[in-house]
Amino acid sequence: MNAEAIRDLFIQVKDGTVSPDDAVQQLRHLPFEDLGFAKVDHHRVLRAGMPEVIFGQGKTPDHLGEIFSRLAQHGRNILATRASQEQYEAVKSRVGAAEYKELARAIVLQQDGKIYGKGRVVVVSAGTSDIPVAEEALVTAQIMGNDVQHVYDVGVAGIHRLLANRDALTGARVVIVVAGMEGALPSVVGGLVGVPVIAVPTSVGYGAAFQGLAALLGMLNSCASNVTVVNIDNGFGAGYVASIINRL
Amino acid sequence: MNAEAIRDLFIQVKDGTVSPDDAVQQLRHLPFEDLGFAKVDHHRVLRAGMPEVIFGQGKTPDHLGEIFSRLAQHGRNILATRASQEQYEAVKSRVGAAEYKELARAIVLQQDGKIYGKGRVVVVSAGTSDIPVAEEALVTAQIMGNDVQHVYDVGVAGIHRLLANRDALTGARVVIVVAGMEGALPSVVGGLVGVPVIAVPTSVGYGAAFQGLAALLGMLNSCASNVTVVNIDNGFGAGYVASIINRL
Amino acid sequence: MNAEAIRDLFIQVKDGTVSPDDAVQQLRHLPFEDLGFAKVDHHRVLRAGMPEVIFGQGKTPDHLGEIFSRLAQHGRNILATRASQEQYEAVKSRVGAAEYKELARAIVLQQDGKIYGKGRVVVVSAGTSDIPVAEEALVTAQIMGNDVQHVYDVGVAGIHRLLANRDALTGARVVIVVAGMEGALPSVVGGLVGVPVIAVPTSVGYGAAFQGLAALLGMLNSCASNVTVVNIDNGFGAGYVASIINRL
Amino acid sequence: MNAEAIRDLFIQVKDGTVSPDDAVQQLRHLPFEDLGFAKVDHHRVLRAGMPEVIFGQGKTPDHLGEIFSRLAQHGRNILATRASQEQYEAVKSRVGAAEYKELARAIVLQQDGKIYGKGRVVVVSAGTSDIPVAEEALVTAQIMGNDVQHVYDVGVAGIHRLLANRDALTGARVVIVVAGMEGALPSVVGGLVGVPVIAVPTSVGYGAAFQGLAALLGMLNSCASNVTVVNIDNGFGAGYVASIINRL
Amino acid sequence: MNAEAIRDLFIQVKDGTVSPDDAVQQLRHLPFEDLGFAKVDHHRVLRAGMPEVIFGQGKTPDHLGEIFSRLAQHGRNILATRASQEQYEAVKSRVGAAEYKELARAIVLQQDGKIYGKGRVVVVSAGTSDIPVAEEALVTAQIMGNDVQHVYDVGVAGIHRLLANRDALTGARVVIVVAGMEGALPSVVGGLVGVPVIAVPTSVGYGAAFQGLAALLGMLNSCASNVTVVNIDNGFGAGYVASIINRL
Amino acid sequence: MNAEAIRDLFIQVKDGTVSPDDAVQQLRHLPFEDLGFAKVDHHRVLRAGMPEVIFGQGKTPDHLGEIFSRLAQHGRNILATRASQEQYEAVKSRVGAAEYKELARAIVLQQDGKIYGKGRVVVVSAGTSDIPVAEEALVTAQIMGNDVQHVYDVGVAGIHRLLANRDALTGARVVIVVAGMEGALPSVVGGLVGVPVIAVPTSVGYGAAFQGLAALLGMLNSCASNVTVVNIDNGFGAGYVASIINRL
Amino acid sequence: MNAEAIRDLFIQVKDGTVSPDDAVQQLRHLPFEDLGFAKVDHHRVLRAGMPEVIFGQGKTPDHLGEIFSRLAQHGRNILATRASQEQYEAVKSRVGAAEYKELARAIVLQQDGKIYGKGRVVVVSAGTSDIPVAEEALVTAQIMGNDVQHVYDVGVAGIHRLLANRDALTGARVVIVVAGMEGALPSVVGGLVGVPVIAVPTSVGYGAAFQGLAALLGMLNSCASNVTVVNIDNGFGAGYVASIINRL
Amino acid sequence: MNAEAIRDLFIQVKDGTVSPDDAVQQLRHLPFEDLGFAKVDHHRVLRAGMPEVIFGQGKTPDHLGEIFSRLAQHGRNILATRASQEQYEAVKSRVGAAEYKELARAIVLQQDGKIYGKGRVVVVSAGTSDIPVAEEALVTAQIMGNDVQHVYDVGVAGIHRLLANRDALTGARVVIVVAGMEGALPSVVGGLVGVPVIAVPTSVGYGAAFQGLAALLGMLNSCASNVTVVNIDNGFGAGYVASIINRL
Repeated sequence: MNAEAIRDLFIQVKDGTVSPDDAVQQLRHLPFEDLGFAKVDHHRVLRAGMPEVIFGQGKTPDHLGEIFSRLAQHGRNILATRASQEQYEAVKSRVGAAEYKELARAIVLQQDGKIYGKGRVVVVSAGTSDIPVAEEALVTAQIMGNDVQHVYDVGVAGIHRLLANRDALTGARVVIVVAGMEGALPSVVGGLVGVPVIAVPTSVGYGAAFQGLAALLGMLNSCASNVTVVNIDNGFGAGYVASIINRL
Repeated sequence: MNAEAIRDLFIQVKDGTVSPDDAVQQLRHLPFEDLGFAKVDHHRVLRAGMPEVIFGQGKTPDHLGEIFSRLAQHGRNILATRASQEQYEAVKSRVGAAEYKELARAIVLQQDGKIYGKGRVVVVSAGTSDIPVAEEALVTAQIMGNDVQHVYDVGVAGIHRLLANRDALTGARVVIVVAGMEGALPSVVGGLVGVPVIAVPTSVGYGAAFQGLAALLGMLNSCASNVTVVNIDNGFGAGYVASIINRL
Repeated sequence: MNAEAIRDLFIQVKDGTVSPDDAVQQLRHLPFEDLGFAKVDHHRVLRAGMPEVIFGQGKTPDHLGEIFSRLAQHGRNILATRASQEQYEAVKSRVGAAEYKELARAIVLQQDGKIYGKGRVVVVSAGTSDIPVAEEALVTAQIMGNDVQHVYDVGVAGIHRLLANRDALTGARVVIVVAGMEGALPSVVGGLVGVPVIAVPTSVGYGAAFQGLAALLGMLNSCASNVTVVNIDNGFGAGYVASIINRL
Repeated sequence: MNAEAIRDLFIQVKDGTVSPDDAVQQLRHLPFEDLGFAKVDHHRVLRAGMPEVIFGQGKTPDHLGEIFSRLAQHGRNILATRASQEQYEAVKSRVGAAEYKELARAIVLQQDGKIYGKGRVVVVSAGTSDIPVAEEALVTAQIMGNDVQHVYDVGVAGIHRLLANRDALTGARVVIVVAGMEGALPSVVGGLVGVPVIAVPTSVGYGAAFQGLAALLGMLNSCASNVTVVNIDNGFGAGYVASIINRL
Repeated sequence: MNAEAIRDLFIQVKDGTVSPDDAVQQLRHLPFEDLGFAKVDHHRVLRAGMPEVIFGQGKTPDHLGEIFSRLAQHGRNILATRASQEQYEAVKSRVGAAEYKELARAIVLQQDGKIYGKGRVVVVSAGTSDIPVAEEALVTAQIMGNDVQHVYDVGVAGIHRLLANRDALTGARVVIVVAGMEGALPSVVGGLVGVPVIAVPTSVGYGAAFQGLAALLGMLNSCASNVTVVNIDNGFGAGYVASIINRL
Repeated sequence: MNAEAIRDLFIQVKDGTVSPDDAVQQLRHLPFEDLGFAKVDHHRVLRAGMPEVIFGQGKTPDHLGEIFSRLAQHGRNILATRASQEQYEAVKSRVGAAEYKELARAIVLQQDGKIYGKGRVVVVSAGTSDIPVAEEALVTAQIMGNDVQHVYDVGVAGIHRLLANRDALTGARVVIVVAGMEGALPSVVGGLVGVPVIAVPTSVGYGAAFQGLAALLGMLNSCASNVTVVNIDNGFGAGYVASIINRL
Repeated sequence: MNAEAIRDLFIQVKDGTVSPDDAVQQLRHLPFEDLGFAKVDHHRVLRAGMPEVIFGQGKTPDHLGEIFSRLAQHGRNILATRASQEQYEAVKSRVGAAEYKELARAIVLQQDGKIYGKGRVVVVSAGTSDIPVAEEALVTAQIMGNDVQHVYDVGVAGIHRLLANRDALTGARVVIVVAGMEGALPSVVGGLVGVPVIAVPTSVGYGAAFQGLAALLGMLNSCASNVTVVNIDNGFGAGYVASIINRL
Repeated sequence: MNAEAIRDLFIQVKDGTVSPDDAVQQLRHLPFEDLGFAKVDHHRVLRAGMPEVIFGQGKTPDHLGEIFSRLAQHGRNILATRASQEQYEAVKSRVGAAEYKELARAIVLQQDGKIYGKGRVVVVSAGTSDIPVAEEALVTAQIMGNDVQHVYDVGVAGIHRLLANRDALTGARVVIVVAGMEGALPSVVGGLVGVPVIAVPTSVGYGAAFQGLAALLGMLNSCASNVTVVNIDNGFGAGYVASIINRL
């Protein structure tokens, strides 16, 4: 469309209805985004099936409901993270098909059920308190069109529970590992698989856990070379980047 | 081989030369690694073409030379990171084909020239001081069988230099972004591409850079959702994980 | 007035009603502030049009109302920052012309509408959550007699939205950039303009944002040389110093 | 020049030597920077008299000498910061007019002696150990075309030495305050003047000074509203931004 | 049981009902945990008398009540830490014999009264505010079958109160020392006894106590060589490890 | 008394009613505190007029009331710090003469009105938000028998207000300086007086004030050599140590 | 000996050569340590076989040689930690039987070969760079009379190497685990054994390892309850406390 | 002298040689310091016997020698802290009576031997590595005219060595306590004496000592109320403030 606009301008110049100097002026004043021929958006084709995402925390139920229902009209999947039951109700009354994923504290609307990921995204978590973050990652990967699986409560102090789930790990194309406290799980999982591991530190713990700092530092220093890290409690980010990788 | 050992045991039981009870005992005392049929290593097939890696820092030239030449005999590629010119000479005298990548402070031996990566790994860096880390990432990706490209000196305070390199960015299957100081570059790059971005904070800077902490925190808080982070100055880790992703 | 007092003293000495020694004694005991002729206040002339400022947080509505109405009698503009709706009502009942700037959480009373700033102060912010701090900066600059403009929601991960607003940036004599999370925006804006950029980190974010520390460090390490920094969430300070600069 | 290129393209289209479609293609492939008519550089006019700046630290004398002499050919002022005597000699042998500012650890070449600043930039520092950073700020402001003055060794524990220099302070259009240890000086100076104060924390001190962190935090929390802060030991940045302000 | 399963497999092979190759396959697919003969659990014999432990914080009373009553059926001792009065009531209604240790904020059910520890565990604490953590350690050691004693309110600023309790200290086989603020007590106690000292920093204090960081660092730097440290406020961990040691 | 007990023992030995060996045994079993002749308490004489102190925070009104009334029976002054209005009422109903110092959040009972301090303790504070901590210091010094004076709201950004109070400062034998934010005031005051300055950082401020850390570091790095520091918000500690010094 | 001194005093009183009052005086002036009958040293019996320990770092070779040879005369074992080859030579020339443990950077003199520990102390370490600290722990435990074993290079990213050493772990009465980087190994080992685990963080790593802080925090937050922690790089402390435990 | 100047002015006014208005003008332009009658320096009388102090670190021997010899001419005591043997030699060649206090790393010149302190300053230190800082405090107190005593190597893990020195402690009018590592000694000493205790944290220690941070935090959180704190390794500051107190 925009390339059209530029082409029209050239045609007007060719036709003599616009002088070259005026054309330069017109070009100068077009907002950048409207130039259209900017190559930067060529990757947009990769974005098919990407959900619209709303950060729910801090928004009034009404406000969230409004945004959600407006976005729902484009036919894409919608994901509202860090959303409360109360916010869900405000959404539900507007968009009947919206679901509340309680564990993940997420509201989702699935309008596009296509699978875009080429393999499976497996989400592993250490303790039961890490589950909300793990579920946020899982729900994110799901709504972005991935086959997902979870392996929960396999902390490193009970290494056999983790080893008993090797089949699940081996079946993954991307692994997300969610852990608080000492954040050791990604290193162990990283050593067990040959695929990328996205590590998510959680703020679970107390005292010297320093709201997730201990887990974060542990993960950044992982001795497994296939581990990269996202922000503390950022289950959404992990699910998102895992989905991006799984589409490659 | 190990599966063979187990199979032999079963045959001995079948033949009656070993009783079932003794077989259980024998099985019990086999070291785990020798069980062989452990599924955990099924992903090893993904490891074809993986280089042997040596962390050069702190090793005497002689020691490094010995390790390097011993590993060279297996026919795989070899990468020694954080290596000095002096260490290189100790290697060179033993393994004539070894090369020194001065900018990357790395010694490499390429015995397997096959391309394993499905696309291109692009390494972007902010300032000239970030180049050693960027080169470490680049050399790592290269020795692991990837088509690589670099885009250097495109810091965010001169956004047009970065935008002028959009073609390079758009051609990437995985992007590595290396930056010190405020570590803002991954966010901008993350917004320009649709593929995974591995962010590497560097210890470049002074004062409130706190040896890379500022850049690290900046990258962990990136507002671009396709960014994950590795440790400060960990060019190798970024190159490694980018390679893993690029093989998927 | 005070110079008068001193002059009177000299006259009394001249008249012989006070001896030189007694005069020295009297001078010694005058409180410094009353000397009046202290040069340190020569810059006060620059202060014409400066508002009276009240830090609202932690004050009872009644207390704030009292302070506000007392100050209002001097005919100057008044600004109460970090003020609640409830505090506003206590003010409103006493000073009918006071307005509540909800987004900025500020109460203002404009009694002097003169424009003191020589150019325009432009306030740029990264995300919607940064708006309260940005608005505090904007309202502060406004009440201090500046032509202001805002450019919101132009985070670095969507660099084109920012570039599409270059006209606004180019029209600024001073730019205030407000950003949380990785705090990268001031560097990019700093590279796009040739005027001073006041960077305001916000406590927006979670996890490794550490209540604004990540943004603060990022801004202090900005690779753009025209950037200076104020405290986390200090929208008022940014608006104030921008106004001071804009009067030069 | 670039606008010319675009204009030529339009003329070629008008002349029929290039078809509109081909013109769109050509436009698409021009690197952004070459578009020329991008408004973002309109502020470049403000940059007249801006020196070329080289960060000397970590560069070999020869390398620095080469860069310096190449830049010297454009007729602009040159400033190499954090430069050693040895680096200076390598510069001197190539560019005879280069001077070494020993206290500031800076090499300067003044080819443009015009005064661009509208007022005076005054640099105030707390202790004798802060002088190298203060001098870097001073030399930077000087080479950028400002009338400068320094007021040194006026730490807050001897408030009378500072007050005795009020005349100097009052004569400033912009003040730079350099201080290590507790970093209290900018607050006091900020209270004495009505103009912008750029605070530079230094790494001077020991123990709980934490390499400038104490001074940095002190300055960020300044109770004087006209204070903004740059990175620890960033004398150059302070001199730069003060110059930008002084040209307004 | 699992060893039985393996043995059965060998018997089937011996009998010819399963071929050696099929047996290898079957073995391969047994989940690790079911192998049974894994030596890693030989130490389980040391676990006789170990209580089931529930981390109460964050669980609804009902949820905690359910877990508690289900675990109670195995006849072992049960310990719920960080539990409220309200949670206790939910437990009490299901398990009448459960007791609430108010100071320790713990719910306990003692079904096994045997003493497993070979000596006495003495819990020492510095201030009255440290008592909840100290009591958690004490109750943990008690429910794990230890003879326990407490020595409270013997902070280092009143060294004579501590020295007056030397008899209690000398009678200990393991000492737990609980202290907030400067965390100095473990060093002094460590110098007075020849047995292991488990130090527990508490979050008691304000300001530069930084929620227990000061105490933690103090204890990690103890000049007494028989001191080891657990996490801030981790009374349970100290009681647990003291019990483990006391059984040796 | 205890010396008596020892003397009796010697007399019994002299009399032959106790053998030397039995005497050694008896001595061995006397608790240390009862030895009585321990010199460590000789300084207790300095403690005449010392108040009994209760840390109110976290205590129930009833509990505080009980402690207060029990201590009140010994005839000494009583000070309960960090006490609420509600706690005061519980005290008042038991001890009618108790007073509530609202600004200081302290309950005091003055039963000993003697002045023990040899000079005056002056309490200086920077901002109005620092007053609660300053008042706690003031009330503590008062109840410990000192002539006290306060100089409030003399922050360093308005240096003339401080200088206008030089008479008060010069009249002090010990000065307490209370400041939040950048904590610069003790350095300035320290330079103006020749007596000891006790600096109290407060948690006043936001953002990079980090709950008093900025002020604390500033004070520890004071360039005035007569400054020592107590914990953040520790007004009581400052008042206490000032009183100890003032009795010397 | 000291009890003798007291006994002599009683005898002198009995004999009438010293009056009871003079005896009280004499007792009062005896230094505490010489009282001898103080119960605090009853635990000294546990100290048989304890080595004399010298912290070598920072001492001149001569100085260390002197201390070492003087202590050697008491017939006890001697351990000098953090000692260089050069220091060893100064010791060797004086004490011919002294040995240098190069990996552990320790000088030892074994004069008492008795085994005091009741079981085996096993030292586990993660990477080859952790070996110096691990060896310091091992040599300490050895010289304190323990049967020791080491299991090295079993980092968590290669969990099978660790599991292959379960026999060694199961044979331990106390386990010391030494690890840098993410410090995850103690949690895994803690889950595999039922005995106390002493965790030693090392300063191995770079970037976000922050000189051992990451490992330290990881270990303090271990999800295995039998883990306690000592200071970063404190191999000696771990060996010491393990020995104390192993004697119980 | 300055009061004279003012008096002269009044006399000139009285004489009619200067008009009142001109006098006001003249007064206005006198630098503040020259006003002379400023009361702020009344406390200077307390400064008799105060030494001139030079911070030696970072100064060339020649530079230090020059400063030292120039100051020596005023007849006051001189103290150069953090001075090397080499610097001393440069001083010695100019000022023959200067002495080098090797342990304290200080150069002193005693020209005024008067005792200004009313009691004794006792310096207590924990370990042998703390002695340089302790000696700096001691030498400072000595050169400022105090009777001093030291009690070294009395760390809290051997509490009896400290208690054996109670006489020394009891004889102090001011106590300085110097300690690294956990910094617990000031709390214990503070509980044993009734006089002010100045605590000096040292950077002695490793790992989690964080260059004195652990000791600093410990001391700031001291449970003994008579403790105040100076900067890490600031022996001079402690000696200075102790002297100020001891003169009261």
